[in-house]
Amino acid sequence: MYKAPVDEIAFTLKHVAGMAEALDAGVFGELGEDLVDAILAEAGRFATEEVAPLGDVGDRQGARLVDGAVKTPEGWRDLYHGWIGGGWNGLTAPEAFGGQNLPHMLHVAAMEMWNAGSMAFALGPTLTMGAIEALERHGSDALKATYLAKMVSGEWTATMNLTEPHAGSDLGVLKTRAERRDDGSYRIFGQKIFITWGEHDFTDNIVHLVLARLPDAPAGTKGISLFLVPKFLVNVDGSLGARNDLFCHSLEHKLGIHGSPTCTMIYGDGKFGDEKGAIGYLVGEENRGLACMFTMMNNARLAVGMQGVAIADAATQKAIAYAKERTQGRAPGWSGEGMSPIIEHPDVARMLLTMKALTQGSRAIAYACAHAVDMAHASEGQKARHWQERSSLLTPVAKSFATDAGVDVASLGIQVHGGMGFIEETGAARYLRDARIAPIYEGTNGIQAIDLVTRKLPLADGAHVRGFIAELSGIAAAIRSTNRKGFGETAARLDAAIADLSDATEWLLAALGGGRLTDALSGATAYQRLFGLVLTGAYLAKGGMADAGDGKEDARIALCRFAAENLLAETAALKDRVVNGAESLAAARAVLV
Amino acid sequence: MYKAPVDEIAFTLKHVAGMAEALDAGVFGELGEDLVDAILAEAGRFATEEVAPLGDVGDRQGARLVDGAVKTPEGWRDLYHGWIGGGWNGLTAPEAFGGQNLPHMLHVAAMEMWNAGSMAFALGPTLTMGAIEALERHGSDALKATYLAKMVSGEWTATMNLTEPHAGSDLGVLKTRAERRDDGSYRIFGQKIFITWGEHDFTDNIVHLVLARLPDAPAGTKGISLFLVPKFLVNVDGSLGARNDLFCHSLEHKLGIHGSPTCTMIYGDGKFGDEKGAIGYLVGEENRGLACMFTMMNNARLAVGMQGVAIADAATQKAIAYAKERTQGRAPGWSGEGMSPIIEHPDVARMLLTMKALTQGSRAIAYACAHAVDMAHASEGQKARHWQERSSLLTPVAKSFATDAGVDVASLGIQVHGGMGFIEETGAARYLRDARIAPIYEGTNGIQAIDLVTRKLPLADGAHVRGFIAELSGIAAAIRSTNRKGFGETAARLDAAIADLSDATEWLLAALGGGRLTDALSGATAYQRLFGLVLTGAYLAKGGMADAGDGKEDARIALCRFAAENLLAETAALKDRVVNGAESLAAARAVLV
Repeated sequence: MYKAPVDEIAFTLKHVAGMAEALDAGVFGELGEDLVDAILAEAGRFATEEVAPLGDVGDRQGARLVDGAVKTPEGWRDLYHGWIGGGWNGLTAPEAFGGQNLPHMLHVAAMEMWNAGSMAFALGPTLTMGAIEALERHGSDALKATYLAKMVSGEWTATMNLTEPHAGSDLGVLKTRAERRDDGSYRIFGQKIFITWGEHDFTDNIVHLVLARLPDAPAGTKGISLFLVPKFLVNVDGSLGARNDLFCHSLEHKLGIHGSPTCTMIYGDGKFGDEKGAIGYLVGEENRGLACMFTMMNNARLAVGMQGVAIADAATQKAIAYAKERTQGRAPGWSGEGMSPIIEHPDVARMLLTMKALTQGSRAIAYACAHAVDMAHASEGQKARHWQERSSLLTPVAKSFATDAGVDVASLGIQVHGGMGFIEETGAARYLRDARIAPIYEGTNGIQAIDLVTRKLPLADGAHVRGFIAELSGIAAAIRSTNRKGFGETAARLDAAIADLSDATEWLLAALGGGRLTDALSGATAYQRLFGLVLTGAYLAKGGMADAGDGKEDARIALCRFAAENLLAETAALKDRVVNGAESLAAARAVLV
Repeated sequence: MYKAPVDEIAFTLKHVAGMAEALDAGVFGELGEDLVDAILAEAGRFATEEVAPLGDVGDRQGARLVDGAVKTPEGWRDLYHGWIGGGWNGLTAPEAFGGQNLPHMLHVAAMEMWNAGSMAFALGPTLTMGAIEALERHGSDALKATYLAKMVSGEWTATMNLTEPHAGSDLGVLKTRAERRDDGSYRIFGQKIFITWGEHDFTDNIVHLVLARLPDAPAGTKGISLFLVPKFLVNVDGSLGARNDLFCHSLEHKLGIHGSPTCTMIYGDGKFGDEKGAIGYLVGEENRGLACMFTMMNNARLAVGMQGVAIADAATQKAIAYAKERTQGRAPGWSGEGMSPIIEHPDVARMLLTMKALTQGSRAIAYACAHAVDMAHASEGQKARHWQERSSLLTPVAKSFATDAGVDVASLGIQVHGGMGFIEETGAARYLRDARIAPIYEGTNGIQAIDLVTRKLPLADGAHVRGFIAELSGIAAAIRSTNRKGFGETAARLDAAIADLSDATEWLLAALGGGRLTDALSGATAYQRLFGLVLTGAYLAKGGMADAGDGKEDARIALCRFAAENLLAETAALKDRVVNGAESLAAARAVLV
């Protein structure tokens, strides 16, 4: 059973991702290390003791649609109310609306633990938090007054309605329409698919944020508006009024995250209310809906990245526990009686160490990204811009590398379990089934790669990414100067990997500058993975140099060295794919049919 | 829907794996190209029209245990009888028992197609065919007379009972026991798990091959005997007699291959018959049961490799079809109206080409392995030994590389489908769920790597593998001498990859020679993948040079080049892991806890 690795998480936050310096510098105001530790401990306790034990029942029972209502798995409604009772829903929300305004770093760390307990459960609140952010930044005071406090407390949940059957990665073609009404409200008509937690029995009301198009809107992405569309209308005294004209038409039958209802939502077909059309309220300006969405997209993507970290960690814990207990064969050098635990077999150890390295690397990248978000929030001027660029750059890497790691680690976890891994009751298979959606939603990892290469590399004319790479070289240099034998070839391996990253970066910037977009896009996914691998090596090295006084230095150094000497060599192939792969890809595309 | 790629399969058999030369040389006797083509066409038709349409219902309904009997999915019983009616079950079986004694190459090609239609369905016959082989080689004439013809026709199916809860990869510790009886028969007592198609409603009888230990047997693997234990005893006139004392206790709830009943079998607990103990008949000699099993293990492993090829091909077909149809965004260079098909996006094309290359590479490796089996069978003396060594060497590579490819390609297939890939009705997810068992059963891929490194590399003191590597270099040289521009850097890339393979091979042979077993095992999995990648590059190149007159030369050359310039660079990292990875792995293992 998953046990939240609170110490490891705290270590990564403080000593790798920059929280210790931020606390010292007063970036988070009064917040001190004691409170951070207490919050992490309690979030971890909740994940370990409350969420994780209900993860399996959620997977087995799934969410079910019964007579138009969604029935959630046994125990989940109480779990949700326990969770909001702990104030977790408003961790980073503004204090004016009942939130705690705590750093995003703490938030992602807590989200990791809840997702590891049950990704299907934690996914619902993740959407609400995103909606809170959108509403707080773009909503009118009236809308905020009516909705925000109840969303922050968790009394009401919220959803994001973007996707339609023909509009997934490309939202410009969505068809849901909005009509203006004289009272300033709108009526919404259309069908949305893949709406996470679009209907459920946790709360009395659900607040839908819906992208739709006005009749006179420009074509494409510049003609999309964002509307708040509640399941139940809200009276002036805050009590619930009439049922709005929307409903959940069906649930998807999915590979994983069975406990999370994935809804097809129908707006304005006349099922409810006197007049056809779901009543909606504009968020932000007309035709600027996509911009509103994009302001929160980065955090949502990082949140999905945390799902990858979470599953990777849970799968690793489970595999290690099994490999210590299960005996089979006699490993070379095994001097015990009878069969050795399979963890003694080199190949099993290799799998487990690979899982650990990918998990910890993903975690560090994601936390570093959250750190940049916090720093941008707490800074001004040039400094704020620097940190905004950093979070922008890191977001696609964190999302894609961590979610790919989630899948790869979960798959290795099954392998470690042998035949038992294929049996559902073992639980290893669920991790793979759950993890498999994360590289897809909130922008596929291919979309992340396009974003990274075409929008993030060119930030500050390439100066930001170059500066970041120079920082990474500094870590390699610091490793070299420690002269600690335990690091083995880490410094040299890291230098080589960073050189690959630098070469690939320059090649891509030159390709973009020269208008060779197809060439740049051909290697975008390889580049994204290259970036994530280099960061994994660099952050494990940074952690290896930290003196946390916890007696785990040798273990961290050994894992860092394993990653450097067993995983980082892949960067050369990835760089090669970036700088040499486009021509053969283009030639083969021509004959793919 | 899957459509058997009969032309592509025939091309690979003939022009890559060596069938054309074998036919010309009369290795297969009277068998000519016309008959080969006709058999492939009919096997493909059956897979496409009969098996594939029932794959989905098998996944949804699964096999169910009702009142001690296993109910198979709707339509599957008829499907099975149609399949044996076509004579497919005895394709390679001896003519004396009603088989057709056709080459193993044809067999694996046909198996690929049936598995692509439904791996869960095709798995049952695979086990029967293995049992036929074991019985034919090791069974007494009396046993053969009673059982073999009915197993060959498919009137009765057969199973392999190896695994017990504490004995998976390590069969030496199994506990099922056998007691001698005065009439020369034995009584079997024990529990076996993970017994594929251990019980079902296809046939009137099921023939179980069971590994068990005699009371006076030596400890470990040298004290295991093999018994034939029928579900119903067989009277002297061949009619069915009393129910034997064995039954299916329960079915596993698995990640995939739901249509295949995975049984826990109980032998000799007194449920049936007058005297406790399931009646069994010795196959081969007492205490030599594992040797009997090993004679068929190679073919069984190759059969599992075919499952990987099959799923990879089916997943690739499905993803390509979707990517041509689904429109989203505008790819760079797209000049059509509106959104482009997603296949036009470079990243999607990269995924699809990677899927194609891994599929075709896996297929070629597996067919080459089957070719070696056929050649060994048809040869004598030194030549037979050469081909036996070749099939021994190729088997672990074929099994592991193809089954890993099955998982990787199925996962990419989900990614190509985006959100739809996560919805079960789409069918892409089933491929991943089904594929995930193949790297585990019939010897995990880690076990294959141990076999490859410790038993196969040392064959003929390393001369065999060295000779094979020299053959591969010949392919690279031939590519160079074609001077065809379409091959791009293929020759150079292939040379470099082969050099990596050669270096890694020499390092491993030296490590084994020097008694450094742990070092050798530390890189065994990386080496195995390195071998598979090099073979993928080499066989795609060989195919690219073939003049089949089918107008597909350019497409094959382009795919070969894509693989060479986009995939083969990974070999350097794999070699590095073999020759440099052991020390850091050992250091990290010490602190893994």
